[in-house]
Amino acid sequence: MQSWTATAISCPNIAFIKYWGNRDEALHIPSNGSISMNLEGLFTRTQVAFTPALQSDQLTLNQQNIHGSPLERVSAILELVREMAAIKLFASVKSHNNFPTGAGIASSAAAFAALALAASRAAGLELDEQGLSRLARLGSGSACRSVPGGFVEWQAGDDNLSSFAQSIAPAGYWDLVDCVAVISQAHKPTSSLEGHALAGTSPLQAARLADTSRRLEICRQAILERDFAALAEIIELDSNLMHSVMMTSQPALFYWQPVTLEIMAQVAAWRRNGLPACYTVDAGPNVHVLCLGDHASQVKNRLLQIPGVKSVLTARTGGPARLIP
Amino acid sequence: MQSWTATAISCPNIAFIKYWGNRDEALHIPSNGSISMNLEGLFTRTQVAFTPALQSDQLTLNQQNIHGSPLERVSAILELVREMAAIKLFASVKSHNNFPTGAGIASSAAAFAALALAASRAAGLELDEQGLSRLARLGSGSACRSVPGGFVEWQAGDDNLSSFAQSIAPAGYWDLVDCVAVISQAHKPTSSLEGHALAGTSPLQAARLADTSRRLEICRQAILERDFAALAEIIELDSNLMHSVMMTSQPALFYWQPVTLEIMAQVAAWRRNGLPACYTVDAGPNVHVLCLGDHASQVKNRLLQIPGVKSVLTARTGGPARLIP
Repeated sequence: MQSWTATAISCPNIAFIKYWGNRDEALHIPSNGSISMNLEGLFTRTQVAFTPALQSDQLTLNQQNIHGSPLERVSAILELVREMAAIKLFASVKSHNNFPTGAGIASSAAAFAALALAASRAAGLELDEQGLSRLARLGSGSACRSVPGGFVEWQAGDDNLSSFAQSIAPAGYWDLVDCVAVISQAHKPTSSLEGHALAGTSPLQAARLADTSRRLEICRQAILERDFAALAEIIELDSNLMHSVMMTSQPALFYWQPVTLEIMAQVAAWRRNGLPACYTVDAGPNVHVLCLGDHASQVKNRLLQIPGVKSVLTARTGGPARLIP
Repeated sequence: MQSWTATAISCPNIAFIKYWGNRDEALHIPSNGSISMNLEGLFTRTQVAFTPALQSDQLTLNQQNIHGSPLERVSAILELVREMAAIKLFASVKSHNNFPTGAGIASSAAAFAALALAASRAAGLELDEQGLSRLARLGSGSACRSVPGGFVEWQAGDDNLSSFAQSIAPAGYWDLVDCVAVISQAHKPTSSLEGHALAGTSPLQAARLADTSRRLEICRQAILERDFAALAEIIELDSNLMHSVMMTSQPALFYWQPVTLEIMAQVAAWRRNGLPACYTVDAGPNVHVLCLGDHASQVKNRLLQIPGVKSVLTARTGGPARLIP
């Protein structure tokens, strides 16, 4: 029996200017634009096969059969692809991450970017980068940033068509490294999906949003000018702004753990003492420490000496989502 | 030789709705109103003696001679008193705290409340409570809240005359206890005085201020209705709002240490599990845990079991600044 198959890989990404809160929860139209860097060497590999024999969509993640809400989110994307391609077959989706799930690395971003590419191509569609970015966004907001390569900006837009990500500089443009201090691989107490919905309950969210275009501009220029000092200041401010909104939501969301705070303090002190490094923290306890390639092994070694740091993953700037044989 | 002498004692206070940022730095006219509780059993005792023999003002704090900036701040208050009383004598000020200085307990609040009362009385003045509160405020903003007794609200005002504190309920009104988890007695890296000046550099300060009257109203009602659940929610929110502004200032001010965050997380979890307790953190690492008198020993014991907690001070609601023989 014939089946239509494609396989794609995609990197996760780490946001420098972060996305928190939606204008449209269903379509993942964000309340503010964001900027990120793809993470090379970490990837999700996803194979999609539309197959006449199937009675429903199937999902395996790291060789485990998955049901319930994750399968429903995948099926929703497959359904959009089926509509666009005018096909009616169910699909088998086999996905594999080479990095720990739920460890403060946006696994859903890589997952939906790879799914958007593999599913659309398996269905015979040839979407352009914007179309792929939009489709990935409908699965998980920040996944739209894992479709283009290198340093990426997601323009918030105001509807499905205008909300997508584009590269602002390619992967080789600047030798930045993300050293991820992993302190917990436990799943988050509150998923990002639920957290976004609480952003508006913080008295600070509107002020954070009102200041976003300023931060985007500073961050974009810092990347284009390869200005690490400027990047460091704006990245740390932006991370602290997002966590301020989280901690003042109702209910309050605390993603920082004591070790998170210790690492943040040490990284800021390293920079004051001349080692160019800065931190950013997503909706989880792990700390992403950005530095230049020349300092990556020193940063990694220092991080490993902090009690509570279980491991350090390192990643240079990664390319776009792409098909593999 | 004749001298004019008076001695006063005053409690420190812990703010439930916090003061951060000034409309007028010199006069300590705050950017927002605040509410606090005086802390019984902790006190500053201050004797002021205007003496013809002195060639300059003298200050001893806990039996140590003090010069420089602390003496200048004390002299500025003495100078105001001399002007009001039309006397020209220098004074000897002997002050003693029965609690550690710089330990996240507002020692300057108790100090300037006691100084305002002792100095004005030693000079023969009989200032009313508002006048004393204003005078204390000129020494250290939050000192104006240590002049009246019990639960106190500082109305921000907009000039020297309109900015003072008043009691909203007396000390015996509600059996609240502050259990202070002391994790460091080290002096702060950035004093509150310097910190206030940075408040306006945070993109979040204006939003925090805009929401203050709502929080003051909720807190005032919670005290008047002895509603612990409502008090707990608004106290923690207000503390997190202030620290959000601090952490997003330029430069960023982090007063939390890892143990601070651990205690905050545990206290919030205790409350979710039925023990009525809540946290608030001033411009320092120590955590003030508020609870009802019935639960104070349980809260103290639990705090002492958290690694990094060196000691726990407990205080019920304290009375006003007062003269002693």
